[in-house]
Amino acid sequence: MSIMLREIKEQPTMLEKTINAETKKLDKIGRFLKDRDVQLIVLVARGSSDNAALFARYLLETRCGIPVSLSAPSVHTLYKSELRLDKALVVGVSQSGEGSDINEVLLRARKSGAFTLGITNNGKSEITRSADETLLIHAGKERSVAATKTYTGQMLHFYLLANSMRTGGKRLEIERIPSYAAKALEREAQIKAAAERYTFMENCVVVGRGLNYGNSFELALKLMETCYVVAERFSSADFLHGPLALVERRFPVILFGPKGVTRKSNLDLLRRLTILGADSMSITNDPAISRVSSRTIEMDTKIDEFLSPIPFVIPAQLFAAHLSQSKGLDPDNPRSLSKITRTF
Amino acid sequence: MSIMLREIKEQPTMLEKTINAETKKLDKIGRFLKDRDVQLIVLVARGSSDNAALFARYLLETRCGIPVSLSAPSVHTLYKSELRLDKALVVGVSQSGEGSDINEVLLRARKSGAFTLGITNNGKSEITRSADETLLIHAGKERSVAATKTYTGQMLHFYLLANSMRTGGKRLEIERIPSYAAKALEREAQIKAAAERYTFMENCVVVGRGLNYGNSFELALKLMETCYVVAERFSSADFLHGPLALVERRFPVILFGPKGVTRKSNLDLLRRLTILGADSMSITNDPAISRVSSRTIEMDTKIDEFLSPIPFVIPAQLFAAHLSQSKGLDPDNPRSLSKITRTF
Repeated sequence: MSIMLREIKEQPTMLEKTINAETKKLDKIGRFLKDRDVQLIVLVARGSSDNAALFARYLLETRCGIPVSLSAPSVHTLYKSELRLDKALVVGVSQSGEGSDINEVLLRARKSGAFTLGITNNGKSEITRSADETLLIHAGKERSVAATKTYTGQMLHFYLLANSMRTGGKRLEIERIPSYAAKALEREAQIKAAAERYTFMENCVVVGRGLNYGNSFELALKLMETCYVVAERFSSADFLHGPLALVERRFPVILFGPKGVTRKSNLDLLRRLTILGADSMSITNDPAISRVSSRTIEMDTKIDEFLSPIPFVIPAQLFAAHLSQSKGLDPDNPRSLSKITRTF
Repeated sequence: MSIMLREIKEQPTMLEKTINAETKKLDKIGRFLKDRDVQLIVLVARGSSDNAALFARYLLETRCGIPVSLSAPSVHTLYKSELRLDKALVVGVSQSGEGSDINEVLLRARKSGAFTLGITNNGKSEITRSADETLLIHAGKERSVAATKTYTGQMLHFYLLANSMRTGGKRLEIERIPSYAAKALEREAQIKAAAERYTFMENCVVVGRGLNYGNSFELALKLMETCYVVAERFSSADFLHGPLALVERRFPVILFGPKGVTRKSNLDLLRRLTILGADSMSITNDPAISRVSSRTIEMDTKIDEFLSPIPFVIPAQLFAAHLSQSKGLDPDNPRSLSKITRTF
């Protein structure tokens, strides 16, 4: 079994462990941040961590009502600009904790008066010194070049943060996520068979919207890294602005289609794709989405949209890992890549 | 000549006209906004307009020191969330002024206490009623489905806004941009010949960073719309996080490489690409970038990085229009698209 597959399967345990170990700390940070009157949340990340941040912007804005900005690190590291961040919470996200540009942004934000958090899988890394507080993912070392368990671990920390910063209203039932994740892993045999069919796929488009928009970036990145597929990623809204022209008969589209508010937009897109003769595969728990997709990876219908992003990305990770193997590639050894990327 | 090409060539005139007609209004708005103590700028757009907004986030953060957030419209339109925006300036960008989700976000932001601006090419459209003030592009009707003159017109308005909101320090010499744009058009014969070489290109990656990051999205979108090329877009920093694995011998990469702070990062990437045997074409005015690129579209060396995004995107637009024709396609009739996209 590849290291990537093994780490994908460690996710339910990692999620459980991280919830148990970190909830108290997050609750304390949440109380502190409520007193501080945070008016803006800035997220700083690159690669898979940036995809987790893309998910987090939807989660934090919808759950906490605070505007979120996904930082452009080069504004700080190359252009050396000083932004007004005294009312901001700045969150750096880095699996290794050693991304030098992420750490530089955190240090500069602290100097501008922001409160800073670092989310990392390495409690001894540089980010623990750059940020005011560290949120630790309990994933054990990630050996796979393609991040999987640290991506969902980062997402989980954003759930904990969103719950802790929310004033009033119901909390999300985060404690359900580990068992949803375990159940998603049971789809492996079906996904492996589905991946066979895509052995010769060279291009595709991955679609997600809202809370699952980050997942579309993450699946596309896995397909680029481990399968060398040129994978575009769009929201079902943006896809209609231009990129739809790409689609010809049998063009493959993979869609995240949970029940919930993105349903109508996803259905509209799938119907357009059907008319164009495209090939669609949906990861969904919505029978209406299943009906208009060429094929479906069925998810548990009990999963609420707000809890869907972690369980829904797991079939996508499994798909990338198995597609890599059915293409005769080794997902643990993507050409040209190493685990820590230093940005200058 | 295609409508797209004709409209590309109208850009120097449009730029000149818009500067002359709109500068005073912008100066007034700038004074008003300085009094208001804006702490956050939110940009709302889709498609090409969203690429102009991506440029604007770098421009406004570096020139005005105010954090910028690129809005996720669905947070407002689907999830119906109320964000704290009382200290925010919210700018909607829409060529037609009829993007229903953009207008909904503007109306909701106004209700939350934000000051709102609409940038549009249509002074009689819905956006002029949704926003507090309208900034008009003087482009005449845009008939091409692929936006060109309205994209640079939107960028120009962000330049005017950045100048008007800046406190102290030198203003950018925006009045130079129309002649830089005119000079860029003189490259057409060379670009047409270059496009021939890419007739059978099916995939590519477009790279830009910082102020030219939005241009990389815009060229990729033009290539998808008018040439059906599956075009990825990345910053030279993010490209090293995973997507580099895509690159094999002769894989085409197109890069925006102005002189300035992004130089080192672009050079590093081009050197990696040379080792991998990739095919690179750079739009650049930096001899060092030229030397490590497989081929170059040379730009005027006098152009400062901060004024480069508009003149540098013009060769890219010309490239897409000519590539479409050399592929035997009609850039004015992309399959499956129409001019106004309504998002639900």
